[in-house]
Amino acid sequence: MIRFENDYGCGAHPNVLKWMIKTNEDTTDVYSEDCYCDKARELIRSLCQAPNAAVHFLPGGTMTNLTMIAASLLPYQGVISSSVGHIEVHETGAIEAKGHKVLTIPSKDGKITAEDIQTIYDSHYADASREHMVQPGMVYLTNPTEYGAIYTKEELIAISKVCRETELYLYVDGARLGYALTAEGNDLTLSDLAALCDAFYIGGTKHGALLGEALVITNDKLKKHFRYYIKQNGALLAKGRILGIQFLALFEDDLYFTTSKDANRKAMLLKEGITALGYSFYVDSNTNQQFPILPSKMLNILSKKYTFSDMGKVDDTHTIARFCTNFATSDEDIKTLLADIAALQKTL
Amino acid sequence: MIRFENDYGCGAHPNVLKWMIKTNEDTTDVYSEDCYCDKARELIRSLCQAPNAAVHFLPGGTMTNLTMIAASLLPYQGVISSSVGHIEVHETGAIEAKGHKVLTIPSKDGKITAEDIQTIYDSHYADASREHMVQPGMVYLTNPTEYGAIYTKEELIAISKVCRETELYLYVDGARLGYALTAEGNDLTLSDLAALCDAFYIGGTKHGALLGEALVITNDKLKKHFRYYIKQNGALLAKGRILGIQFLALFEDDLYFTTSKDANRKAMLLKEGITALGYSFYVDSNTNQQFPILPSKMLNILSKKYTFSDMGKVDDTHTIARFCTNFATSDEDIKTLLADIAALQKTL
Amino acid sequence: MIRFENDYGCGAHPNVLKWMIKTNEDTTDVYSEDCYCDKARELIRSLCQAPNAAVHFLPGGTMTNLTMIAASLLPYQGVISSSVGHIEVHETGAIEAKGHKVLTIPSKDGKITAEDIQTIYDSHYADASREHMVQPGMVYLTNPTEYGAIYTKEELIAISKVCRETELYLYVDGARLGYALTAEGNDLTLSDLAALCDAFYIGGTKHGALLGEALVITNDKLKKHFRYYIKQNGALLAKGRILGIQFLALFEDDLYFTTSKDANRKAMLLKEGITALGYSFYVDSNTNQQFPILPSKMLNILSKKYTFSDMGKVDDTHTIARFCTNFATSDEDIKTLLADIAALQKTL
Amino acid sequence: MIRFENDYGCGAHPNVLKWMIKTNEDTTDVYSEDCYCDKARELIRSLCQAPNAAVHFLPGGTMTNLTMIAASLLPYQGVISSSVGHIEVHETGAIEAKGHKVLTIPSKDGKITAEDIQTIYDSHYADASREHMVQPGMVYLTNPTEYGAIYTKEELIAISKVCRETELYLYVDGARLGYALTAEGNDLTLSDLAALCDAFYIGGTKHGALLGEALVITNDKLKKHFRYYIKQNGALLAKGRILGIQFLALFEDDLYFTTSKDANRKAMLLKEGITALGYSFYVDSNTNQQFPILPSKMLNILSKKYTFSDMGKVDDTHTIARFCTNFATSDEDIKTLLADIAALQKTL
Repeated sequence: MIRFENDYGCGAHPNVLKWMIKTNEDTTDVYSEDCYCDKARELIRSLCQAPNAAVHFLPGGTMTNLTMIAASLLPYQGVISSSVGHIEVHETGAIEAKGHKVLTIPSKDGKITAEDIQTIYDSHYADASREHMVQPGMVYLTNPTEYGAIYTKEELIAISKVCRETELYLYVDGARLGYALTAEGNDLTLSDLAALCDAFYIGGTKHGALLGEALVITNDKLKKHFRYYIKQNGALLAKGRILGIQFLALFEDDLYFTTSKDANRKAMLLKEGITALGYSFYVDSNTNQQFPILPSKMLNILSKKYTFSDMGKVDDTHTIARFCTNFATSDEDIKTLLADIAALQKTL
Repeated sequence: MIRFENDYGCGAHPNVLKWMIKTNEDTTDVYSEDCYCDKARELIRSLCQAPNAAVHFLPGGTMTNLTMIAASLLPYQGVISSSVGHIEVHETGAIEAKGHKVLTIPSKDGKITAEDIQTIYDSHYADASREHMVQPGMVYLTNPTEYGAIYTKEELIAISKVCRETELYLYVDGARLGYALTAEGNDLTLSDLAALCDAFYIGGTKHGALLGEALVITNDKLKKHFRYYIKQNGALLAKGRILGIQFLALFEDDLYFTTSKDANRKAMLLKEGITALGYSFYVDSNTNQQFPILPSKMLNILSKKYTFSDMGKVDDTHTIARFCTNFATSDEDIKTLLADIAALQKTL
Repeated sequence: MIRFENDYGCGAHPNVLKWMIKTNEDTTDVYSEDCYCDKARELIRSLCQAPNAAVHFLPGGTMTNLTMIAASLLPYQGVISSSVGHIEVHETGAIEAKGHKVLTIPSKDGKITAEDIQTIYDSHYADASREHMVQPGMVYLTNPTEYGAIYTKEELIAISKVCRETELYLYVDGARLGYALTAEGNDLTLSDLAALCDAFYIGGTKHGALLGEALVITNDKLKKHFRYYIKQNGALLAKGRILGIQFLALFEDDLYFTTSKDANRKAMLLKEGITALGYSFYVDSNTNQQFPILPSKMLNILSKKYTFSDMGKVDDTHTIARFCTNFATSDEDIKTLLADIAALQKTL
Repeated sequence: MIRFENDYGCGAHPNVLKWMIKTNEDTTDVYSEDCYCDKARELIRSLCQAPNAAVHFLPGGTMTNLTMIAASLLPYQGVISSSVGHIEVHETGAIEAKGHKVLTIPSKDGKITAEDIQTIYDSHYADASREHMVQPGMVYLTNPTEYGAIYTKEELIAISKVCRETELYLYVDGARLGYALTAEGNDLTLSDLAALCDAFYIGGTKHGALLGEALVITNDKLKKHFRYYIKQNGALLAKGRILGIQFLALFEDDLYFTTSKDANRKAMLLKEGITALGYSFYVDSNTNQQFPILPSKMLNILSKKYTFSDMGKVDDTHTIARFCTNFATSDEDIKTLLADIAALQKTL
């Protein structure tokens, strides 16, 4: 099987593994207070041009989201998300399990706007019985979104401005952040994110780490006693060093960005090839996830040789598929897939 | 001011007060284990033709909803509700605060159908990554709905059938149940509810009690150790007798039904009068809440003399208003209101 | 049966009932925003000499405790309580159900000291792995305690001082506050409580109301958006006026204090009588709860005629009993009980 | 520095690393549904002689405890633990954060008995107001305990019997299980644990893995939909394969047991050496943690060269220290430490 169904079915990037091997015999402090985590923190602060940011390493994305969001909200507050946001759809109610409602804004590609946020905020405070309703407390974005769309700097500045005016925290889920920051059309940087958000995370798992996400908190109000939250939610690994070590590997020689950019390039090959065959896409994505709408029969045949995700039917005979690339995807695989699609197109 | 903004701005129905006075000098057992609560339980079981039902008295509706729903769901389960359901909109996230997501079905008048429920259920189990999503565990209905609509027996039978086939609990919020069961077009009875639902509550507060709701649990699986839940949620009143006493008063000589029916009659006077003047309604209601769409200017003037709720604008010049009746509403007040609307219609 | 098992088995104090009757025909605003609640708030602020205090009325004690404590603590914080504190022992884990640990200080009579608090605080911050432990965030006292003991002004000043130095909130559960403030040996007043605590509640249920507790919040940090908490926890009664009305009755002409003082007087009759017969007490109480240690056989016989609580055996033949008085207890009942004890003493 | 302060300051056991390297280029299914996790599950089931057990891999111990315990308890139930149990003392209130009280049994060495459990159970059900109290729902043991003590087969059989009679679930935290099962005096096996408990976990982190614990659930009632719990709590790693791979390494050629046994042997060297010098121990441990009581001055000097944990003073001049061994500890280090202690003894 040639695998395109996600970007985390592979092992570690070779450089990540190399770092794990070369540091294995050391003994260090524990619970992420070791020298590797400290170095990785310094590196990330430097890349973000945020010398006072708090940087924490957590094992996975859901854990990072639930810890950060629950640490930020008061008990009667909820978090604003797009209707297809990961926390709304794919975390088994982890946010609600921590006591908080997800307040959704309808969205197809997963993006929401400054206006959306202002509207949801205004409508809460305009209501005379607002204390009978969940108060918005935070905005949750994903960049890129679950459908591969990215935010421009202008859009994020506008969102940040609304959030600061309304005293809503702004938090960005960057599970696939590298793919956003290296996509065609992107003009955001890590330091923009640090300047515009109250907190965001730099995803490791989907960028060649075995596990681990780097949570960056820039708002002082959210920093205090944060390790208590991490521990209480079970996210404080005893041998926390392995998280720091992997981020050291990922950010050595810009590996995070070069691998992301290369994965995007491979996704663009796929996008262009499928477009050339006359097929359309559910949403336009410049990142490593592509959502072509293909004949269901074709997908059925392709599924014998390739793995990909079924994102639902658009009509009786067509289905949205998701194909992902990552550092481990070969150009060869893309070419083979495109050739097979082209061949099937003729026979169906 | 003549009050129509809700059905709980008055005191107790005189008969309720009478019962409170006549029992005041007794000393009894506490925490709702007294003779009055026991008698009220028996009376309710009998009216429901449900001799094995568990009947509990709780102080208010939100408390009853959060206690019953959280007692029924497993931690990873959510409750299905209409998008305008009270638990979704007006309980400050009480259900989420207990750890559970509300899974919504879009609805204008607050009703949902058996098909809606089947669809939400099927789509969960059809998803390969369903364990990444909240599992439906219960269906929450309001009868009448927040917009005064009622369920027919046929509709409730269909919903109950789907719920039993899919092992979803069915729970009905009857904050205004009396108004539903005595409305034109209703063919449901308390015993139908007992037979078709796993649990429901008979509202007291909006039917002439000072406070109190009677929760009826018919499914054995939901009965066990229920008083632990009530206590843990702070809903076990020390002098619980006052809840039982009020329900004894409400069900003596059918008071609950006669006052509800009379409140509906007054609401129909209002509906017919407004309809005759050529105005339409946001939704058609045969119960004690009416939602006429009136000129915003007219409502502005009416608000000097009457209280009512503003339910939002439909266009630049028209607004949905909510007018409620109850046992304490006088026919005279309805007539005065209609006369004022008619007079204003001519001048605006 | 002559009832001594608690102080809430009776109905409302006649004056409370009178107020409920005389206000019953009014229509008012709802959710405790009515004129009666407002007057009661003013009266309580005035009695507390705390013009800026927030005053909220909630239906019961457990609800008040869980709402106030959960609104005050951060997710990783716990509340310090005596080992026999109501929140630790008799609220079915309501505090834990809101996510917080109760950090206990061993105590026989329910009192804790400033030194106890300092010790528990110091030991947390002295521990290098403190982020692996629950951080103390609040101190919970009951006055009188569950065993009838009271705090002196000197003791409460010392506790308040430690709390302010350590940034722990101080909250006093006053379910039976009237009995403390009118007890022999008491030198505290409502205004002392307002000055020394961050929040406390004045119990209504155990002082002649049918239900209701008045929560007084003096610390500005704890006031914000408090009604959201009340609503989310289901404690916002629609006809909230009945809570305000009852407190107006209780504080009219000092009723709260005169009835409490009189209940204490009756408890002292009991205490002196039992002492005179040579029996000892589990703890010394000057309030309306008395805990004599009596022969188990005697209690067995007394239980045919009197109700009282069994608080556990002290040895094979002796048991601690709890006898409570309140406004409705008659002097006659006390005398009869003492006579019966005296008579039984001779025969056993 | 020579490190004895814990058993997780080192990297992976070389064999674990070898497995990670040799499997790194594979692509697999995700979320622990890959072939390595499946093989590791089979291996563990086989070692436990529990062919129907559910086996799940979670990243860490606190996460495993909170997921398993919260999945087992009803909302009004609590978990019984020793007063020094990890969940009571060192998980930042993770159990309470999931809504449950920890019901403690005083213990010095961390062990509790069948009698203790029976007593706590009986006292709950004997109380007339039991619904005002947290109901025991599960028993939590650690083996070895936090102080290195182990349970005998006879003790565990007695505990299991009480648990089954009282319908309490029995769950064993095996963070250091290997050290228990290979200790002098142990007569328990993995299959005994599977037969006697409802669930237990086999610790990886403290036995040479980088992270990961294997949760074994034998009671069918606790198996259903367990992956929803794992996901909701953020414990479902995307590249879950790394957990399975490590357990394959740990159980290949009995590595788990041979390294544990060897670590115990080194701990015994230390124990015998310190004993020979005339010092006593806080508790007697045959496992890899040793708790000698040493002169505080000596420890102060030792701390320049060695790391170890300070477990508190026993008197003005003596302190309990914790020294841990693991696979990476060298015999040489033990000998050096003993020599230093002996030398210091003479000078102090």
